[in-house]
Amino acid sequence: MDIPYDFKLDYLSETISKNNYKRILIQLPNGLKKYYKYIVDYLKKQNPHIEIIVSLSATYGACDIAEEHARRINADLLVHIGHNMYPWYKPRINTVFIEAKYKYSLSTSLLNNLIEYLKEIKCKNVGILSVIQHSHNISELKNFLSINGFNPIVGSPKYNVMVSGQVLGCEYSAAIGIKDKVDCFTIISGGMFHALGVYLATTKRVVKIDPYENRIVDITEKGRRLLMKRYGVLMKATDMKTLGIIDGGKPGQYRPWLVKVLSEKARTKGIKTYIFIADELNKHILRNIDLPEIDAYTIVSCPRLPIDDLYDYEKPVLTPGETLMILTGDMSRYIFPW
Amino acid sequence: MDIPYDFKLDYLSETISKNNYKRILIQLPNGLKKYYKYIVDYLKKQNPHIEIIVSLSATYGACDIAEEHARRINADLLVHIGHNMYPWYKPRINTVFIEAKYKYSLSTSLLNNLIEYLKEIKCKNVGILSVIQHSHNISELKNFLSINGFNPIVGSPKYNVMVSGQVLGCEYSAAIGIKDKVDCFTIISGGMFHALGVYLATTKRVVKIDPYENRIVDITEKGRRLLMKRYGVLMKATDMKTLGIIDGGKPGQYRPWLVKVLSEKARTKGIKTYIFIADELNKHILRNIDLPEIDAYTIVSCPRLPIDDLYDYEKPVLTPGETLMILTGDMSRYIFPW
Repeated sequence: MDIPYDFKLDYLSETISKNNYKRILIQLPNGLKKYYKYIVDYLKKQNPHIEIIVSLSATYGACDIAEEHARRINADLLVHIGHNMYPWYKPRINTVFIEAKYKYSLSTSLLNNLIEYLKEIKCKNVGILSVIQHSHNISELKNFLSINGFNPIVGSPKYNVMVSGQVLGCEYSAAIGIKDKVDCFTIISGGMFHALGVYLATTKRVVKIDPYENRIVDITEKGRRLLMKRYGVLMKATDMKTLGIIDGGKPGQYRPWLVKVLSEKARTKGIKTYIFIADELNKHILRNIDLPEIDAYTIVSCPRLPIDDLYDYEKPVLTPGETLMILTGDMSRYIFPW
Repeated sequence: MDIPYDFKLDYLSETISKNNYKRILIQLPNGLKKYYKYIVDYLKKQNPHIEIIVSLSATYGACDIAEEHARRINADLLVHIGHNMYPWYKPRINTVFIEAKYKYSLSTSLLNNLIEYLKEIKCKNVGILSVIQHSHNISELKNFLSINGFNPIVGSPKYNVMVSGQVLGCEYSAAIGIKDKVDCFTIISGGMFHALGVYLATTKRVVKIDPYENRIVDITEKGRRLLMKRYGVLMKATDMKTLGIIDGGKPGQYRPWLVKVLSEKARTKGIKTYIFIADELNKHILRNIDLPEIDAYTIVSCPRLPIDDLYDYEKPVLTPGETLMILTGDMSRYIFPW
C-alpha cells in the first residue's frame, strides 16, 4: 500500500514507550481510515504489549475528537490523525495530534501551470493559503512565485494553534487578514471544500492548487454561484414564524451561547424556537423530525453543514451568520463563517 | 395529530415541577421523534420556565441512552421515551423512562382471527410475549385465550427491570423459560424484529399479533430461512485468518469483557484480531475500513446489527454467539442472542 501521508509513526512509537502508554485510541477521518492497519501494525511491532482500538466515528475536524470513545475504553492516549488543534476547543483527554502531512512536493508542471494562469488573470499580489496536510508546501510555492516575479503573501491566522497560511472549514482569518493586499488567493488543497470557504469569507478570486489531481482550478465562478444560492436560501426564511435551532453534541461543536443569542433575538421578533442537539446531521435525520409547523432550521454545530450538506433540503437550513442576517434585517454583508 | 401512545405527560409535568427541574433533555426513538413538538409544547405550557432540548441521536433501545447529550447540556433530567430500563446497564444520569404504551386495545377481529389460526395449527398451550409498548395488552390476550379454551402462558423475564412477558431485541428469557411448555408463541408487536428474535431464540412456531396492521402473521417460515442464512454466513467465516471485532461506543453497548473472550479464543486458534469501537454501524462505515486482509467482522455492541442490518455485507459479519460457534467448533446449537 502506498502511503502518501506522514503519520509520524516513529515519534508516536517513542511517545508511547517513553510514557509507558498501554491503551490507545486511534481516530482518523473517513478518507484516511483505510490506513488504520498500517498504523496499528507498525505501532504494535514497536510496542507489542499495547492495546490499540480504532474509533469508527467520523471526524470532520479537530472540533470533533473521539473523547467519549477514549474515556469509554479508558485510553491513556488518544491519537487524532488528520488535523491539528482547533482554536476554540481543547480535548479534555490526553491527545496527540498527527497532522498527516502530504509526503510529496508540488510538481513542476503544476507550478508552471499556476504562474501561467496567474499571469493570464493579472494576479501579481498572490495570497497563499493551505490546509494543514499541505502547510509545508507553502514555502515551496512562495519561493517559486518570488523567483518568477510575483509578490506572494502568506496570511497569518488569528489563532496560535494554527500554522502560517492555514485555513479550516470554519476559520479563514489567514485569508481575511490579507484580503485587501492581494489580487487573488491560491490555496493548496484537494476537493472544493476549503477553496469555496475562502471565496465565501473574502469574495475574492480563488485559485485552487490541487496536488491530488495535479491541476489548478479557478473556483471563483463556483463560489459566486454558491453565494447567490445562499442568499436564495436565506431569503426564503425571512418570514419564518418558527425556527428549529440545532446545537452540536460533539464536544468542540457545542455552542450554547450562540443558541442563546439566536433564540433570544428570534423571540424579540416573535419567532418561536425549538432547540435540538445532534452529533451527526443529514437529510434523513432532519426529515425525521420535520413538522409542517417549523419554517426553517439553523445549524449551530458547523457552518458547513447547511452550505455543503443540507443546501437542497426542502426548507431553508441556515448557518448562524445567515440567521443573524435575517434576525437583524441587515443583508448588506454575507456573514461567514460565523 | 393523533397520538396513539401514552407519554404520561401529566406525570412528567408533575415530576418536573416537584423537583424544580430546569433543563431537560428529551430522547425518542426515530419512529416517535415526530411527537417531540406535542411533548415539548405540553410540558412548557405546564412549566413555562423550563428549557427543553431534544436529542436527534437515534436510540435503538434502553442500551442506548443519550447520556453524553444530557451531560453536555447539563440537564437535570433526561426523559427517555419508548423503552423501559435495560437489564445490563443503568444510565449514570438522572433518567425517567416513559415506555410509550400503545393506547388501544387489541381489536375483536384480530383476536378472533388469532384463535381461528391457533386452532388450525393445533396450538393449545400458547406462550404470550410482547414488547413494552403492548405489555398492558397481554392480560386482554390471556383472558380472551382462556375464555376460548386455550392454555395461555405468560413468560417471566430473568431480569426484574423487565415486565411480565416482555422481550427485547437481545433478551428472550421470557420465551426461553416457557419454551418446553408451549406449542407455539404469540407476540404482540409491530414489525418483524422481535418476532424473528423469538424464533431465533427458541426455534418454535411464532405467531405475531400486529396491532398496527390489525392482522396476525405466522413468521415461523421466515425465521427458519433467517436461521439458515445465518448458518450460511457463519460457515463462510470458518477459515478466517483475521477478524475485526467491533465493540459498542454507546454506554450500554460497550462490552470489553466479550471482546476479550473473543480475541483470546481467536488468538489460540491463530486468528489475528483488530479491535474497533463504533456508536453507529452500517454498510458504508464498514466498507470504509474494510481491507482485503480482514476476513470477517464480529459486532459486539448488538447482536441484531449483523442479523438485521449487515446480513448482506460482502464479508461475513457475525454476532458474538456465532463467532463463539466458529471458535469452539461447536455448531450443534445456534447461539442467540448472546
